[in-house]
Amino acid sequence: MMKLKIDAYKILKKVREQKPVIHHITNWVTIYDCANIVKALGASPVMAHAKEEVADMAAISSSLVLNIGTLTTEFVESMRLAAKAANRKGIPVVLDVCGAGATAFRDQKSFELLDELRIDIIKGNASEIARIAGEAVVTKGVDAGDVKQNLVLIAQNLASKRNCVVVVTGKEDIITNGRKTLVVKNGDPMMTHVVGTGCMAASVIGTFAAVEKDLVKAAASGLVCFEIAAECAAKISKGPATFKEKLFDCLFSLDQGIIGKKSKVYHI
Amino acid sequence: MMKLKIDAYKILKKVREQKPVIHHITNWVTIYDCANIVKALGASPVMAHAKEEVADMAAISSSLVLNIGTLTTEFVESMRLAAKAANRKGIPVVLDVCGAGATAFRDQKSFELLDELRIDIIKGNASEIARIAGEAVVTKGVDAGDVKQNLVLIAQNLASKRNCVVVVTGKEDIITNGRKTLVVKNGDPMMTHVVGTGCMAASVIGTFAAVEKDLVKAAASGLVCFEIAAECAAKISKGPATFKEKLFDCLFSLDQGIIGKKSKVYHI
Amino acid sequence: MMKLKIDAYKILKKVREQKPVIHHITNWVTIYDCANIVKALGASPVMAHAKEEVADMAAISSSLVLNIGTLTTEFVESMRLAAKAANRKGIPVVLDVCGAGATAFRDQKSFELLDELRIDIIKGNASEIARIAGEAVVTKGVDAGDVKQNLVLIAQNLASKRNCVVVVTGKEDIITNGRKTLVVKNGDPMMTHVVGTGCMAASVIGTFAAVEKDLVKAAASGLVCFEIAAECAAKISKGPATFKEKLFDCLFSLDQGIIGKKSKVYHI
Repeated sequence: MMKLKIDAYKILKKVREQKPVIHHITNWVTIYDCANIVKALGASPVMAHAKEEVADMAAISSSLVLNIGTLTTEFVESMRLAAKAANRKGIPVVLDVCGAGATAFRDQKSFELLDELRIDIIKGNASEIARIAGEAVVTKGVDAGDVKQNLVLIAQNLASKRNCVVVVTGKEDIITNGRKTLVVKNGDPMMTHVVGTGCMAASVIGTFAAVEKDLVKAAASGLVCFEIAAECAAKISKGPATFKEKLFDCLFSLDQGIIGKKSKVYHI
Repeated sequence: MMKLKIDAYKILKKVREQKPVIHHITNWVTIYDCANIVKALGASPVMAHAKEEVADMAAISSSLVLNIGTLTTEFVESMRLAAKAANRKGIPVVLDVCGAGATAFRDQKSFELLDELRIDIIKGNASEIARIAGEAVVTKGVDAGDVKQNLVLIAQNLASKRNCVVVVTGKEDIITNGRKTLVVKNGDPMMTHVVGTGCMAASVIGTFAAVEKDLVKAAASGLVCFEIAAECAAKISKGPATFKEKLFDCLFSLDQGIIGKKSKVYHI
Repeated sequence: MMKLKIDAYKILKKVREQKPVIHHITNWVTIYDCANIVKALGASPVMAHAKEEVADMAAISSSLVLNIGTLTTEFVESMRLAAKAANRKGIPVVLDVCGAGATAFRDQKSFELLDELRIDIIKGNASEIARIAGEAVVTKGVDAGDVKQNLVLIAQNLASKRNCVVVVTGKEDIITNGRKTLVVKNGDPMMTHVVGTGCMAASVIGTFAAVEKDLVKAAASGLVCFEIAAECAAKISKGPATFKEKLFDCLFSLDQGIIGKKSKVYHI
């Protein structure tokens, strides 16, 4: 692996200046975290799921983040309408396949969305992505199960097959479009002790994708910023709840110096 | 403008003593914040949206707070049932027109609620209120868009037309019933960097309206307390998340001295 | 009453080692708190409510927590499907009768669930449990109303009648299966000033029940740990929001020494 200099700060600066509207159709557990993390980045979150308005809302947004964490049939229908509007307008669509592999319903709905719509970025943890890629794995609720396969290869193949960017979050994040593959090694173990870091990562990626057309670069830059903030937060926290609070604070005040110094992005 | 002494503490004290039940039908993003802010005031929040029970719940409450932030058709139907029960019982109904102007659906549903029910207080930011007043504005998601018109006049006309109190939140809040108009100049810029301050403001207003019949005074007093707490919180916070945490703590322990000293209410 | 040594830490250690999946169908207000408290215990929360997947999700979980705080007819139908799957698999089902007594709808749905399903643990505050037991009380929203009856007797009779464990939370918690009755005297008044402590208590009980077959012991041990964490948090907090934050942190790092020293469990 070769260490890479990507200017994550430059994209963060764009977010802060342009303040893009990020439309979410997300789960009920971490909807609050997702809205707050987008706001902490300096962007403008909007959550709307009524079938009567999702297309209109997507059309005035700069990216769309879908998360199936607490999906229902009606909800997925709204995701479809919103994503179609996003596809028409050409704004990026992120799909967090939260909990894929846990139930047949989740898998089926994920495949429907992927088959019927243009999804620009698929994001999940190792077991979720493996399931979406068609590998036999068991997802333990919404936490990452055990994946024995070669994750990088699985991600690359999925990206090629679906013609999109695939992001696998974990201790080392994999970001690939099938041809170009980056690995982000930032982050802190404390991230696994709080609810919502995975969902927030998808929101951060969606926010960066709203202002940067190179989606591999956008996703990697978003993760770098988010996870450097997590590293800073872990140093000054005394448990999961103070950690989460500091994570928002640190992301809000993240500057060029700290990003340049701590960024750990590699090219495979 | 003439500086005004309104005894906001006196109403806060009533809230703490009477512990009114505040029924919310609100959005999924900030429902958590709304419940917590009501609790921090010393009152008792209750959230219920099933059509089978909203009328019963409104009938045992002391005020009703409606927020269309993540509205659906079914949800608005429950708002209707709850508001009718509130109207029959004579308890105040607050409508937060959250995100009005962002989609046609939001506007339409807001107008339906305003036309069919007795809404005692309409609350929104500048662009939301302008839209509800019939002015041509563009709401950028749920954050305040750009409003060129004379806001005070718009608010006064809307209040007169709808025969209710109109509250426009912003750097300077406008509270008017069409005849009497107050301006609250408390608050801190940090409030714009966290999700939920607008929704919480509506909950605070609803809570004060539960114990004070003069709704202009109730709304202004609520905002004064909420925003003085924000000023105190901003001084001891290091970012948006610590700010939000301190906001609850400061509101919880707000006393007569600090309110008297920091209150900035003006009569136009 | 006789002071009792129950090894609450031993069960907490089991939770941390086994990391059981705790399936929730819960309310929209405190869903975030419930997920976070389960995570702070070292277990794995999963929230899912679609009728198409709840049975599958319950079947891969180690306990099921139901909470009627923001119930709807559809939601209760999902609870039924999930509980049936849990019953078939033999995993414990906790029902938090949140807000029972506030509306006829809540009472009716609670009774339906209790009549049709095997509920292993019923949890509520004094007025909620009294209502479920058939006593005439008035629930003031979701906060505990005034209960004049002998609570211990009411709880014991309900446990015997429903053949389950009944937990009444309050300043002194009552845990009984009708024959064996424990009282937990831990906790801090600050718990009444934040939203969600009741709901979180049910999640903690569900988590402990996932790894300990003696459900009276499981429930009492869970409450002991949760409320000792609250005692620790209260000492280092300056208001309700810092208190809540510290509660998660303290629970996360709770150790054998502090539990042994502070545990206040009594046998009646």
